[in-house]
This record gives sequence, structure tokens and C-alpha cells, in this order.
Amino acid sequence: MGAQPTVTDVAGVAGVSRQTVSNVLNAPELVRPETRERVQAAIHSLGYRPHASARRLRTQKSSTIGIRLDPITQDGISGSILDRFLHALTEQADRQGLRVLLFTATGPEDEIEQFRRLSDAADVDAFVLTSTFHGDPRTEWLIENGRSFVTFGRPWGIDDMTDPEHLWVDVDGRAGVREATAHLLSRGGPRIGFIGWPSGSGTGDDRRAGWLEAMRAGSGLTEEELRLLDAAVEDVVPNGADAVRRLEQRAGRLDGVVCVSDSLALGALTATAGRIPVVGYDDTPVAEALGFSSVAQQLDEVAAGVLELLTGAHGGRVQRGDPVTDPRHRLVTPRLVVRDGPSLIGDRTL
Amino acid sequence: MGAQPTVTDVAGVAGVSRQTVSNVLNAPELVRPETRERVQAAIHSLGYRPHASARRLRTQKSSTIGIRLDPITQDGISGSILDRFLHALTEQADRQGLRVLLFTATGPEDEIEQFRRLSDAADVDAFVLTSTFHGDPRTEWLIENGRSFVTFGRPWGIDDMTDPEHLWVDVDGRAGVREATAHLLSRGGPRIGFIGWPSGSGTGDDRRAGWLEAMRAGSGLTEEELRLLDAAVEDVVPNGADAVRRLEQRAGRLDGVVCVSDSLALGALTATAGRIPVVGYDDTPVAEALGFSSVAQQLDEVAAGVLELLTGAHGGRVQRGDPVTDPRHRLVTPRLVVRDGPSLIGDRTL
Repeated sequence: MGAQPTVTDVAGVAGVSRQTVSNVLNAPELVRPETRERVQAAIHSLGYRPHASARRLRTQKSSTIGIRLDPITQDGISGSILDRFLHALTEQADRQGLRVLLFTATGPEDEIEQFRRLSDAADVDAFVLTSTFHGDPRTEWLIENGRSFVTFGRPWGIDDMTDPEHLWVDVDGRAGVREATAHLLSRGGPRIGFIGWPSGSGTGDDRRAGWLEAMRAGSGLTEEELRLLDAAVEDVVPNGADAVRRLEQRAGRLDGVVCVSDSLALGALTATAGRIPVVGYDDTPVAEALGFSSVAQQLDEVAAGVLELLTGAHGGRVQRGDPVTDPRHRLVTPRLVVRDGPSLIGDRTL
Repeated sequence: MGAQPTVTDVAGVAGVSRQTVSNVLNAPELVRPETRERVQAAIHSLGYRPHASARRLRTQKSSTIGIRLDPITQDGISGSILDRFLHALTEQADRQGLRVLLFTATGPEDEIEQFRRLSDAADVDAFVLTSTFHGDPRTEWLIENGRSFVTFGRPWGIDDMTDPEHLWVDVDGRAGVREATAHLLSRGGPRIGFIGWPSGSGTGDDRRAGWLEAMRAGSGLTEEELRLLDAAVEDVVPNGADAVRRLEQRAGRLDGVVCVSDSLALGALTATAGRIPVVGYDDTPVAEALGFSSVAQQLDEVAAGVLELLTGAHGGRVQRGDPVTDPRHRLVTPRLVVRDGPSLIGDRTL
């Protein structure tokens, strides 16, 4: 990885975590004097130079942002959300004289290879990453190599959510699903089901947590009853139909269902044919066309946040650690778009 | 526009059309000797140099293709087709060491300004244009200024469809809609309606022509009866529902309906609730999820064709003029994806 020492090298020599090294560099008052001295000694002995200024994109006519574009997925209903983000990003970047360069990658290692190639050739000044996951080697590499980047998506690791080296913007899915669930609770009975993804994905677990919070606060149901209202399936339309039927069998009666995606909501809707309200997530054109409620991610705001972080326009003295006040970590609140229900389907109301 | 003389300058001096100048350069045997000499004299006196070699993209690691990305449209069901083309183009370009740079534009004039800026700065070696229209000033400018480009979409003008300076790939929408209509005719009664766009768009008129051809060949209906089966509306979902109701009122009975887009097909489907078969166009994820038939544009093939034309991989001696045999103009045949119908909607079949 070249002769340039990295944060990891410094952490190794000082016998501390990378986060601690970052703290010494960015918020030394948080680090015990003894540890601070040890880290500073390691920095000195290795000749490490922080990349802070290199990591900031200089806004100029030719600045180019690289972003990976994946092959089209089979089920493009909720999947198109990243396309919509790309539109918003390109439009806003263009207004600031920044360009967007697309590339593809077969996996995280290949994407890192692309980072290397595109930044070595000086074709790309900064990267925007999507679909982050816990222990993501891509952000690790970008930090170690002092590249400018922002992710749309949290790091999802407990210890790195507040990493000052990792700038991110994300949507507060938990808040969105909590609001959707509370909305259905206020409209009728307490038996609101949730159709989510199998646990393990940061995004999916976060949204499920929002449903659970709202149900614990407002449904009056027991934990056992809540378990019967919670389904986990892969994100394709027919699974939404199967899941809602299974929930109805298991829980006896549903007063509504909140889904982790519009794909699953469409499936749930086709199986329940308007008998109960269904709320989706992503507010796709399908939700609008069929007239069901959905949680909108506010992608314009996400794109604006990403560009602000990239260009350093967030400015000012940062408040470390708190995703709400730390301008390096931005959680955008989504918006519940309430619709009357799928009255459009059939001459007979669906 | 600089001191460099253009094809238009030559045409002006020689008193001929730009097409004739192109013919002299590309297929002199088609031009009368007298005219040919006049054009050659003009070329000589102006010092005009054809851009043929400059216009061909040199395949090399850093070659970059520029493409405009529009803001997200409200009704993104059929609109997402250009996103899917972008995915296919980026994936295939990447395999050839080519990159895709995105930009935005507020209109044709602004897009030309972007062409100028991006090619002057040598950031972009070639452009891919979408949403072509008759008399498109963008292709005019690119030809005059010797820039490398290919359009996804025909020029749509009678006199420029075979322009050897204008490389294009398009989908044969007329053939696709003709096949869809013939398919419905073969399944039942002859009264197959068409819900298209208001006339005036090359793409929409071409698709309507396919319906008309199939109906004239196979329905046995009079021209007057056909007129009653033909509706023209703007491309948003509720219009599909309104249009199919109007057609049923006007024509008495429909045995099926072919729509110019999946957006309109979705609308028609919601209004007819499975009573009659509906075929859409674009084979979007919505058509797949709801289980209705649709015409698939074969975007992988379009992207491959665009890249072949850009990189000159089509090679060989060209056969001028005929879009079928002229490798500079490629018409891709779409594929009718037949599905059983929207059995998914409702426990009761829709």
C-alpha cells in the first residue's frame, strides 16, 4: 500500500484503536493525556501526516465524483431508489460545477481496485458510496489511503458510527417506520403487522426497530403477540403476498401492515385487496400510481448533504460523536406520504 | 464557432444540401459528376477537412463517454427505461475500459453548451444522446463540430434517417406493437384498442403505426371502426384508465388493448380489472410484478450497438442508406413478453 504511513500504522505502534488516533487528531480533549502522548509519539516516529485537507474535495470546474452503478436488479420497484438518488446527486453536483463519473464493480475488492485506478489517474477527486454494510472494506481502504469520500448509508458498526474520518448521510428509517406504524395505530385497531427483511442488514433491522418502538408504545400488545405480527422475507413482490397471508393465519386478524419496501407492500396489497391498509417504504412511482401510503426517503436532501460534506460546505466547528449535531454525520428524517388507499384498482374499489 | 469550416459552409458555397456534401465524402458514386465537382471545389477553396477519423472514439483506458441525465419525472414507471439503458451502457462500457460521465442540461441549447465545455476540456471523448426528436439541434451541432456521438433514437426526419454522419441505434417500436397486436388478435375477438400518445412524437407515431398495420392485416375492421379504437393521451397512469373507459363507450366492446407504455397499461388494467387482456410497452418491473404482457426494448442489445458504433467495432465497408444493412444505423427488434395476466391482484383474480 505504498510507503505512506496510515492511521492503522499509527494505531498499531501506539497500541490503541484507529478511533483513538482519530480522536487525538480531531478532538484531543477527549483523550487521556497519557494516551494522547503515546499516539503523538507514534505519529512523530512514523512521520504520519493526516489527510484532512487532502480528503476534502476542492470545488472547481473539473472536480469529478465517482460512483458505482450496479446492474439492474430483477425486481426494480424499490431497487430504483438508488437511481433516483443518482439523478438528485447529478443534478445538484452539476449546479456546483461538479461532474459524476460512473463505474461498475463485481464486489467490494473490485470496487477498491477501481478506487485505486480512478484516483491514481486523477480522473476522480472523490467517491460517493452506497449500500454500506458493517465492516465495509471499502471505507476502510478509502480512509487508510486518504481519499475523499462520503457514504449514503451509515457504517452500521457500533464502534464506527461516530468515526470522524467517515463522513456519511443516511435516512432515519427507524423514525420513518415508527411514524408509519403510529399512523396506522391511530387509524384503527392495534394489530399492525410488519413485513421486513431477514435480520442482519443494518437498514432492515433499523426499520424493524421503528415498528417495534411504535407498537410497544401504542398497541398494548404483549411481546409474544408482537412476535406473531413480525415477518421476515426476501425483497420480491410475491413474498409480500405470502407474508401477509401467513401473518393473518398466525395472528388471527390484522388491522394493517407496514412493509420495509414498496415491493413487499405491493405484494401485501395484492393479497389483501384493500381489506386492510398497507404502508410501503421508498415512495416509488408504483406507490403513487396505485395510491398506497409510503415512506419517502427525501433523496434531494440526502444528495444535498452528501455534496455539502464532500465540498466542506458544512463548515464551522464540529460537535463530535452525536449524529444529530455532528455535521459530519447526517441523519435525514423521511416523510410519510399518506394516500387514501388503492381505490384505483378495479371499478370495484380494491 | 471558430475558423474551422463545416459541412454547412461547404454546402452553402456549393449550393447543395448538407446531405449531398456527406454523400460526396462518403458515397461519391451516388452523386452526379457535375455536383460532385462543385462540392469538391468548395471543399478545396474553404480548406474543409472531414472529421471522419476524429469522430471515431479511440478505445483507450481513459476514454470517457458523456451522457445527459434528466431530473426524475413524476411518473417514473415507463420513464425508468432510460435508467435501465444507463445501467446497461455503463456495465458494457466498463468492460471495454470506457467510462461514463453524467451531466445535466436545462434544454437542447444548454446541452450543446455542455458538449462544448466537456469536449473543449477534453473530459469527454464522445457523447451518447437520448430522446432525439425531428430537427434536433444537438446532433446538428455535433456533426458540424466534428464530435464523436451516437444517439439512442432515430433522427425522425425523412431526409436525415440515412445521414451517414449520424450514427444511431433505435428499437423498432412499430414491429413490437405490431407483434403485440397480432398476439391479441390471435387470442380472441378483433376489437383490439390502442392507447397511445398524442401524435407528433416520432416514437409514439411509430408505435401507433404498428397497431394500425396489424389491425388492417388481421382484424377485418373498417377504417372508421379502427378510428374508434384509437385513443391518444399524455403518459400518466390515470389517463390509461380514462382512455380505456372512453374506448369502451365509443367502440361498444373491446377484446383487448395495447398500450404505448406500461404506465398507461397499468391505468387500463386498473379500470378493466382483468376483464380483457392488456399489453404494455417497456416491460418494466411493474409489468413483471403485476403479471401483464409487455414489449421489452432489449436494452442490452441497444447499449452494445451504441458502443460498437462509438468504437468503430462495426467495421467493414458500409452499405449506405438502408437502416437494416447500414451498420451505422441499427434497428433493434423488441421482444413481446407474454404473461398470463394479472392473476396476482386480489385473492379473487383481478
